[in-house]
Amino acid sequence: MKKQFAIIGLGRFGGSVTKELVEQGADVLAIDSDRTKADEFRDIATQVVIANATDEQVLRELDIPLYEHVVVAIGNDIEASILATLLLSEMGVKHICVKAETDHHEKVLKKIGAHRVLHPEREMGARLAHHLLSANIVDYIELSSQDTIIEAVATPSLIGQTIQDLNIRALYGCTIIAIRRQGRLMAAPQANEVIQAEDVLVLLGPKKAIYAFEKDFIAN
Amino acid sequence: MKKQFAIIGLGRFGGSVTKELVEQGADVLAIDSDRTKADEFRDIATQVVIANATDEQVLRELDIPLYEHVVVAIGNDIEASILATLLLSEMGVKHICVKAETDHHEKVLKKIGAHRVLHPEREMGARLAHHLLSANIVDYIELSSQDTIIEAVATPSLIGQTIQDLNIRALYGCTIIAIRRQGRLMAAPQANEVIQAEDVLVLLGPKKAIYAFEKDFIAN
Ligand SMILES: Nc1ncnc2c1ncn2[C@@H]1O[C@H](COP(=O)(O)OP(=O)(O)OP(=O)(O)O)[C@@H](O)[C@H]1O
Ligand SMILES: Nc1ncnc2c1ncn2[C@@H]1O[C@H](COP(=O)(O)OP(=O)(O)OP(=O)(O)O)[C@@H](O)[C@H]1O
Ligand SMILES: [Ca+2]
Ligand SMILES: [Ca+2]
Ligand SMILES: [Ca+2]
Ligand SMILES: [Ca+2]
Repeated sequence: MKKQFAIIGLGRFGGSVTKELVEQGADVLAIDSDRTKADEFRDIATQVVIANATDEQVLRELDIPLYEHVVVAIGNDIEASILATLLLSEMGVKHICVKAETDHHEKVLKKIGAHRVLHPEREMGARLAHHLLSANIVDYIELSSQDTIIEAVATPSLIGQTIQDLNIRALYGCTIIAIRRQGRLMAAPQANEVIQAEDVLVLLGPKKAIYAFEKDFIAN
Repeated sequence: MKKQFAIIGLGRFGGSVTKELVEQGADVLAIDSDRTKADEFRDIATQVVIANATDEQVLRELDIPLYEHVVVAIGNDIEASILATLLLSEMGVKHICVKAETDHHEKVLKKIGAHRVLHPEREMGARLAHHLLSANIVDYIELSSQDTIIEAVATPSLIGQTIQDLNIRALYGCTIIAIRRQGRLMAAPQANEVIQAEDVLVLLGPKKAIYAFEKDFIAN
């Protein structure tokens, strides 16, 4: 018994965790109380079990305490989500990650031993907001509460200049960490690199620096 | 009338889009057919309207065609989501972004004119899977289908070496684009920078290169 991952609940979130783990070569035990849901994952997960995760006996029979990571992805039935998490915690599972529905749900989960609590809908909402805020920003990534990486299409005022000319680091406090040009990624471009039309600049820096740069060069 | 953003449906996803946009200083018109939901956003959004987004008359009275970005974040009522999207499309709204529940829902949405379709639960599921795959990876970011940025805590085999010593770029084809040290972010570190215990390395490169690096240095 040396499978690492068990996923409880195969809805859109849990199902997607399962698929991506398997795609990356991991062994995954997939559990759902619903037969139809479970059957959907027969050809995807390493092992599929129809079981109620709030049943301690069942979890023990599945050797759940031996799994390093267990994800609880039960949404609507908050009671079941909490009870399953409690059982996992009592069994000493090392990494318990749980999808929460509300703030109250999160609070309870943390109290009873969840190591990580996620709000997929909220997190994707925040990501979309950043996308929407600047039309030219093709991707937005939040690295921490302070630092950010953005990708921005080169605007006319940037094209034809070298990275040195722009002096972005001194003026704004952020850095061009890569340029994507015609599908190729050039990491850590040289100071004498000339920015071309359709280049996508990847910028890293404190949020404030990035916002200042965006304001001058990107928003229009 | 020059508000840019209208959000239809103030559930977890739409509510989070609204909050983040407002936090970043944008004007947001928030629409929900449910009075209690709408009231929750009275002090958050620029303007809150209790309205059924499948009613063309209502959308016209709200000047919806003047909004540059409209987000449809109606989940359970797929029919309403589709009908609202169709109306927005017919009115010529420039950027229509819609949350989808299923593949079939997505297909219909794209056919009737949605410019962007999101699956928040699935996308966050895939992100979590990457997090889980390497215990030391504190963050995972997908830049494109080929390139990736990861953050990884420095392992004992890295500590004490300079970036030059490691020669990661030549050996693996990826680049250390930043180091986070004691809460501070050092973008584009020098070749003679010595990696210290608890440093978080931010690496950028093609997925394959990153996986190879992870395999040698991070997984254990
Ligand atoms: N006690 C339980 N034991 C095992 N699986 C369960 C249990 N309760 C619910 N499930 C399963 O969890 C899955 C996800 O539940 P549900 O659909 O309520 O969550 P959700 O958060 O809405 O999903 P999504 O990720 O699609 O938004 C379902 O397939 C359901 O059958
Ligand atoms: N026709 C409509 N017009 C306006 N608002 C609507 C309409 N139909 C539903 N809504 C609102 O959309 C919001 C989101 O709907 P619902 O809760 O079904 O979506 P959801 O995808 O489950 O939400 P979440 O993002 O929390 O997962 C609700 O507040 C609901 O009142
Ligand atoms: Ca759900
Ligand atoms: Ca984040
Ligand atoms: Ca939902
Ligand atoms: Ca992505």
